[in-house]
Amino acid sequence: MSAVKQGGGSGSAQDVLARLADVLEARRDGADPESSYVARLFQRGTDAILKKVGEEATETVMAAKDGVPARIVAETADLWFHTMIMLAHFDLRPADVLAELERREGQSGLEEKALRGTREGDVAGD
Amino acid sequence: MSAVKQGGGSGSAQDVLARLADVLEARRDGADPESSYVARLFQRGTDAILKKVGEEATETVMAAKDGVPARIVAETADLWFHTMIMLAHFDLRPADVLAELERREGQSGLEEKALRGTREGDVAGD
Amino acid sequence: MSAVKQGGGSGSAQDVLARLADVLEARRDGADPESSYVARLFQRGTDAILKKVGEEATETVMAAKDGVPARIVAETADLWFHTMIMLAHFDLRPADVLAELERREGQSGLEEKALRGTREGDVAGD
Amino acid sequence: MSAVKQGGGSGSAQDVLARLADVLEARRDGADPESSYVARLFQRGTDAILKKVGEEATETVMAAKDGVPARIVAETADLWFHTMIMLAHFDLRPADVLAELERREGQSGLEEKALRGTREGDVAGD
Repeated sequence: MSAVKQGGGSGSAQDVLARLADVLEARRDGADPESSYVARLFQRGTDAILKKVGEEATETVMAAKDGVPARIVAETADLWFHTMIMLAHFDLRPADVLAELERREGQSGLEEKALRGTREGDVAGD
Repeated sequence: MSAVKQGGGSGSAQDVLARLADVLEARRDGADPESSYVARLFQRGTDAILKKVGEEATETVMAAKDGVPARIVAETADLWFHTMIMLAHFDLRPADVLAELERREGQSGLEEKALRGTREGDVAGD
Repeated sequence: MSAVKQGGGSGSAQDVLARLADVLEARRDGADPESSYVARLFQRGTDAILKKVGEEATETVMAAKDGVPARIVAETADLWFHTMIMLAHFDLRPADVLAELERREGQSGLEEKALRGTREGDVAGD
Repeated sequence: MSAVKQGGGSGSAQDVLARLADVLEARRDGADPESSYVARLFQRGTDAILKKVGEEATETVMAAKDGVPARIVAETADLWFHTMIMLAHFDLRPADVLAELERREGQSGLEEKALRGTREGDVAGD
């Protein structure tokens, strides 16, 4: 799979997520909370960041219920964006998450996870 | 689709997310719900998938409250994984989300979003 | 609607929830969104209300992780309060929820629900 | 505490919630996790209980998006039920939540809360 950009377009995902993580870390370490939304969120701390994660997850669910593709994409981007703020808050990187996803990749990995989940006997009862 | 990694590393994020999306689509379109967790989730439909998104968001929040890096990474991977199942359910791709994130990238984009949010006058009152 | 408390205590739950539902309906039907948080939330509509439900659920989870009783109570009150706004938005009353809980009450009811949940074979995989 | 219903109706909310809390505490302290869903949830501990709270909140949001009154009531009942399990897990009672709601009751209380929220300058950005 090639990371070649068609016409200088969206670049590789690696680039997008890594660059965004760099921007978030710069906001975390140096930006003015008065003028930067991201810096303000870091300053407010763990609970404020996690509240946004929960909120964006809810908005993603609502967008999916409405079934409008552009909104699903926008809300998922908001959710991933705020989980990346959370990662940066704990000195973690999106690459850590991608490595974990890669580790599970492939049929065996995915289904192993499912079997593990079943074995753990999740409490049901919706 | 090749699983070959350049240099034996984690490959590019583009590779990881795109390959995972391919695997999910193959499960969606052809796997046996009896033997595949992912195929079963697709078969159960929108609400079952979204319930998992909400559940994984909650688990991500709990892991972050505990502050254990490995668990934060694992739960965030679970959350991203299930949002990717949701995307596939709506014939969307992680590349769509990455393109949206890239669109917002850079200081101006991030802060423009924050200012927009503020202008919209989010109902407060935690 | 009387605010008189029997014996100066907290009144009956019936009173508390029913009176609160009355207040919410009055806000919904007549208050100025400029001066009332609740009226503003009703005016903003379903998604704004549900976003608050998701947000308050997240805050309840965080408070429980911290294990501070007073915060658990306060956040649960926020969560119930916003679910009551949601109920009022759909012309429902807390009495409807209480009737449903009562219907399930008792060992047989509770465990019947659990068995039902198990039979439905909830997708596991934490 | 009496289970007598006035007029053969649904009893008072006080009765419903207090009786349910009694049942939950009995499950917590004495029931067999093998045969009781509630006892099993208590045994699995804080995170398992909170995961259910997050899950039921998501299901409540989805039911409200569908706008089917009976499902909204049923899912809200599930959500309140699992928050009551959480309360019992921390030796709290629904009466504590009702007292907190009562404390905030009335226009001044509700709007004071809203003003407080606004003053705290909730980070916006949908």
